[in-house]
Amino acid sequence: MIAVLDCTLRDGGYINDWSFSKLAINKIIDKLVESNIDIVECGYLSQSKGKKGDSSLYPTIDDITPILNNIRNNDTKFACMINFGEYRIQDIPDQGHSKLHLIRLAFHKKDLHDAISYASLLIRKGYEVYLQPMVTMAYSDADIMELVEASNKIHPQAVYIVDSFGTLTNADIKHYTTLLHNNLEHDIALGFHSHNNLQLALSNSVYFIDLVKNWRSLIVDSSVFGIGRGAGNLCTELITRHLMGKKMGNYNVQPLLEIMDEYLLPLYVRHPWGYSAAYYLSAICKCHPNYATYLLSKQTLQVRSIENILSLIPASERLQYNLKLIDDLYLNYQTTSIDDSNTLESLKSKLEMQNILVIASGRSISIECEKINSYINREKPIIISVNFIPKNIEVDYLFISNRKRFDMLNHFPSNQTIITSNIIDRSPDCLSVNYNKLLNQSPVISDNSGLMLLSLLKKIGVKNIVLAGFDGYSENSTENYCEDRLIFAIQDKNYTLLKNEEISSILSEFGKTLNIQYITKSAYCKLYMRQK
Amino acid sequence: MIAVLDCTLRDGGYINDWSFSKLAINKIIDKLVESNIDIVECGYLSQSKGKKGDSSLYPTIDDITPILNNIRNNDTKFACMINFGEYRIQDIPDQGHSKLHLIRLAFHKKDLHDAISYASLLIRKGYEVYLQPMVTMAYSDADIMELVEASNKIHPQAVYIVDSFGTLTNADIKHYTTLLHNNLEHDIALGFHSHNNLQLALSNSVYFIDLVKNWRSLIVDSSVFGIGRGAGNLCTELITRHLMGKKMGNYNVQPLLEIMDEYLLPLYVRHPWGYSAAYYLSAICKCHPNYATYLLSKQTLQVRSIENILSLIPASERLQYNLKLIDDLYLNYQTTSIDDSNTLESLKSKLEMQNILVIASGRSISIECEKINSYINREKPIIISVNFIPKNIEVDYLFISNRKRFDMLNHFPSNQTIITSNIIDRSPDCLSVNYNKLLNQSPVISDNSGLMLLSLLKKIGVKNIVLAGFDGYSENSTENYCEDRLIFAIQDKNYTLLKNEEISSILSEFGKTLNIQYITKSAYCKLYMRQK
Repeated sequence: MIAVLDCTLRDGGYINDWSFSKLAINKIIDKLVESNIDIVECGYLSQSKGKKGDSSLYPTIDDITPILNNIRNNDTKFACMINFGEYRIQDIPDQGHSKLHLIRLAFHKKDLHDAISYASLLIRKGYEVYLQPMVTMAYSDADIMELVEASNKIHPQAVYIVDSFGTLTNADIKHYTTLLHNNLEHDIALGFHSHNNLQLALSNSVYFIDLVKNWRSLIVDSSVFGIGRGAGNLCTELITRHLMGKKMGNYNVQPLLEIMDEYLLPLYVRHPWGYSAAYYLSAICKCHPNYATYLLSKQTLQVRSIENILSLIPASERLQYNLKLIDDLYLNYQTTSIDDSNTLESLKSKLEMQNILVIASGRSISIECEKINSYINREKPIIISVNFIPKNIEVDYLFISNRKRFDMLNHFPSNQTIITSNIIDRSPDCLSVNYNKLLNQSPVISDNSGLMLLSLLKKIGVKNIVLAGFDGYSENSTENYCEDRLIFAIQDKNYTLLKNEEISSILSEFGKTLNIQYITKSAYCKLYMRQK
Repeated sequence: MIAVLDCTLRDGGYINDWSFSKLAINKIIDKLVESNIDIVECGYLSQSKGKKGDSSLYPTIDDITPILNNIRNNDTKFACMINFGEYRIQDIPDQGHSKLHLIRLAFHKKDLHDAISYASLLIRKGYEVYLQPMVTMAYSDADIMELVEASNKIHPQAVYIVDSFGTLTNADIKHYTTLLHNNLEHDIALGFHSHNNLQLALSNSVYFIDLVKNWRSLIVDSSVFGIGRGAGNLCTELITRHLMGKKMGNYNVQPLLEIMDEYLLPLYVRHPWGYSAAYYLSAICKCHPNYATYLLSKQTLQVRSIENILSLIPASERLQYNLKLIDDLYLNYQTTSIDDSNTLESLKSKLEMQNILVIASGRSISIECEKINSYINREKPIIISVNFIPKNIEVDYLFISNRKRFDMLNHFPSNQTIITSNIIDRSPDCLSVNYNKLLNQSPVISDNSGLMLLSLLKKIGVKNIVLAGFDGYSENSTENYCEDRLIFAIQDKNYTLLKNEEISSILSEFGKTLNIQYITKSAYCKLYMRQK
């Protein structure tokens, strides 16, 4: 028998912090039941993180069961997941005749034996238990055999292969499946949880099913529209359609499309999931997707450099995310110390007593160009652009600290190019300055190029600075830049806000010693005034 | 031998109207060569549509060859595609020693024999020719045999299976492959062009390769990041990685990621492609994706209704897009005539002499709520909301003509609900009015709910109308509504602008007989003032 387990409300919660409304939870479960999905996962059960009310992170089982009591269909099984360590066993009531039949227990390899003991107590309380050994690719064959032996003793309903980073190939799946199938008691089902980083979720799941479908009960996890962390999951609407085509199930796709249409697309618009460069890279480097997300979000690195940095992560650190580690690797990668004292002296002599106009690449540069030009004609400032060469303004210097922008630049005279030492393939005639001396303390925007230039100008004694094109990041990334080719990526809304706030706060620090004025529209300016 | 043909510049052009800059075309081709792709398709060749300069729609072969002359690598083949009928054969020069080796000829089934004659002349001019029978699923076995027979006579380099709508299953692929393989001359290669509507592009291509790889030369089409019409293509970075894993090719993935990063992500931000409800639906209904796109863009239908309407398209019309047909089907589906004379009479007596405040669901409702409340307190208007129940404003009537919004509504008194006849499951106590009598003439916004209500108010003799929440559509769909749950979809920018213009122009028509005022910010108001 092949069962489809839908984890829309559980794995999908990574997208909206599980804040599904009660109404939405009810409707989604109703529609999953209507579509004849075999097992419906209602969310996470967590004493530490659960919330009463509009959430699929439930603090107690009693928060789940009322939702299920109105459902008439008796063929559907209902499940929830516990991350090992997030629920005291003594607080879990006996299963009794509750409609919540099934608990899935997710655990890290290091917790294997404790998790197995916990699972055996859940079984004793009357629940069906599925074991979810996260990041199965971290298990050696000996580890798998340890898992098998422990499982055979407590006899859970199912044991899973969990492809946390979407990196397993058919060969890997065959290997794990064979090992588990040959050694697990025949009446323990085998499950497969895929991710779509390499667009293999569907074909890997189909391959898994075809391997042992005639000899053992199987479960495949999926979510509607693939909603889930990172590149997302197998799509419920695709796997059910496949199984129907092969006469291996009897599902109804329409209610799934209604879930997609009414509940998931509004989330997708704000926080898109799915196949992307970041998740592709993390899959081919076999590391936690957050590492690639972190490096991409910097928007300063070419893919080539991202791959280089990912390859520097020690194997032992790849599977769990370590922010400190990746931040260090990033800054080390960017930092190459040089002696820039002569360059600073020469810049000081040319700029110290001048009015400086700094031009960043915000959209206002094209919208408010008349204002800028009339300022230039009136005040004759020294003009420095940041990371780009404006189309209609002749600049005196180009400041460049972003290696991705560096690669997009056309020719500009070397002796007017101020360049930071992280860009190692710069021309020797450039005005090179130390990268790490210009960084600020905020991990979010430590190497923001505009701020790095201000830091340099302050260092050489400049007093009067006028800013143009410092618009601030807009929620809509297509509105960020004066030229479309400068758009690199869609950014998360909260991250955008955070960046704007951090930049404003550092600008307001600069404002204490420098005379800073804005001649174009700026989100920083507003925030900066408020802070003043 | 298995060859990968990258069609980024050709099929990807559907996303940006082929307006790749000369520089971008050069760089993309360079990087594809660097990644060791076997065949690089440079774009379309078209006398009718080609453009000089920054475009991958070339008016002559001489516009392509200079790009290729700087390339040193001699292993890569270069191709372009001609849509049969878009280039006079006498205007194509002999191949000679040009670097453009290969022409792909795409044609519809009805043109099979004319296309074959054309192909034979191309072969005589010295080109390698690939035959691309579009929508191969439209070919019966007899049609395929006709294609085979004609092909064997002129001996092209390759014949393709083209899965235009991404609907082919493994069984279909096996069928077509077997038929072609068994009957085509052994030295004609077999090609497969997939689409990703059902996320099957990769697994179908792998399946295709495994079927006959030991007996015949094969070609698979792909594009970087899957860029292409509709749900997009097979990803070049995925198929090359797969082939390397199987020791069936020697590629370099990094340059592909650089193409994605530097040239394609900026396009994706504006015009995303990939798996979506629309393309899933068109695939399962085996029809041209534009039909589903059209119905989804209305944002008035539940998926259930969309599937119903798609199923009404006659089989003979499914494979080529017919705008008139789908528009008629849509309006017929929405229209159900009723006798509404009593309802209109009763509404007239209650509303005719009153000031009416109409509340639509724009974001301004929440931002400018104080302004609205102070207007209400001052003027005591009759308040009618459109398609939603505002959170903090008590309305006298709810007007509803959008069946998707209807399904999202909470309870509201039937005798205060004005409802159009397209919503057939309305309660009999509602104030029902004829749907088709309220439509306007613009196909883009013929059934816009706000305009339908104005049309109704005009009909019953109302004179004074104040509008709130008529913000206009923003390019950024997350900014459109006062509540997030009202966002249905990401909209194309041009379509958004067009809708705003059409609505403004109809509002300005209303303005000739009605006294219309805006109390909240509105894009229509601006456009309306300009038109006045």
